[in-house]
Amino acid sequence: MNLDQRLSDSSEFIIDLKLCQVRLSKNAAFPWILLIPKPENIIELIDLSVADQHQLMNEIAAASSSMKDLFTPDKLNVATLGNVVPQLHIHIIARYKSDPIWPNPVWNTIHQDYAPEIFNQTIDRLRERLSKATLK
Amino acid sequence: MNLDQRLSDSSEFIIDLKLCQVRLSKNAAFPWILLIPKPENIIELIDLSVADQHQLMNEIAAASSSMKDLFTPDKLNVATLGNVVPQLHIHIIARYKSDPIWPNPVWNTIHQDYAPEIFNQTIDRLRERLSKATLK
Repeated sequence: MNLDQRLSDSSEFIIDLKLCQVRLSKNAAFPWILLIPKPENIIELIDLSVADQHQLMNEIAAASSSMKDLFTPDKLNVATLGNVVPQLHIHIIARYKSDPIWPNPVWNTIHQDYAPEIFNQTIDRLRERLSKATLK
Repeated sequence: MNLDQRLSDSSEFIIDLKLCQVRLSKNAAFPWILLIPKPENIIELIDLSVADQHQLMNEIAAASSSMKDLFTPDKLNVATLGNVVPQLHIHIIARYKSDPIWPNPVWNTIHQDYAPEIFNQTIDRLRERLSKATLK
């Protein structure tokens, strides 16, 4: 698939689902994944076929369940903005009442680097959980 | 339906679709609607049944097309955060490269009041457009 360089640089591959590639944000401040539909030239949700829109919802649900199971957040934030990087990508972010930005949105706030072993562990845990999702 | 007081106060009824009530934000700084699923005690997307998740995507797509047709934005922002108001609500916001907050997210930024006649016109135009959506 074609992947915008900024998405590639700011996140790491976790797993390919039927429609989307799932990637982990390199920002350790929040458990934060991206779902990126693999068809080309998709910017808005409505650029996807209706079948792919439903598949996207299936994959958002599977990814949401995985994030909830692994990180037990107080709230999930699910969003597609695309003001900076047009290629359609859906953010799923685990939020806590104790996180430093709560209750504000996370974009353009803080960045923390992962310790490499934690980063790899997080990818492995998400890959294992998502590989068991029935929709794959 | 039960509607959180803060959602009720900050927006106005446009139309009831099969799953969601659609409301116009009272913030004139951006064309901004909310989709609020009518079932009770829904906080996360994954609290909805799978059928309702797909219906929600149908209604997000119809509302996105309506926003695109009526406001010709440079980008749509579609998001559910819920950090402040837990009742599930999906924001659909028309963004322009010329808007004062671009490319940042709009939450907790500027607020402008609508002129009453523009507010009512906007509701009427969205209601007319959404009432023609095939999914209703």
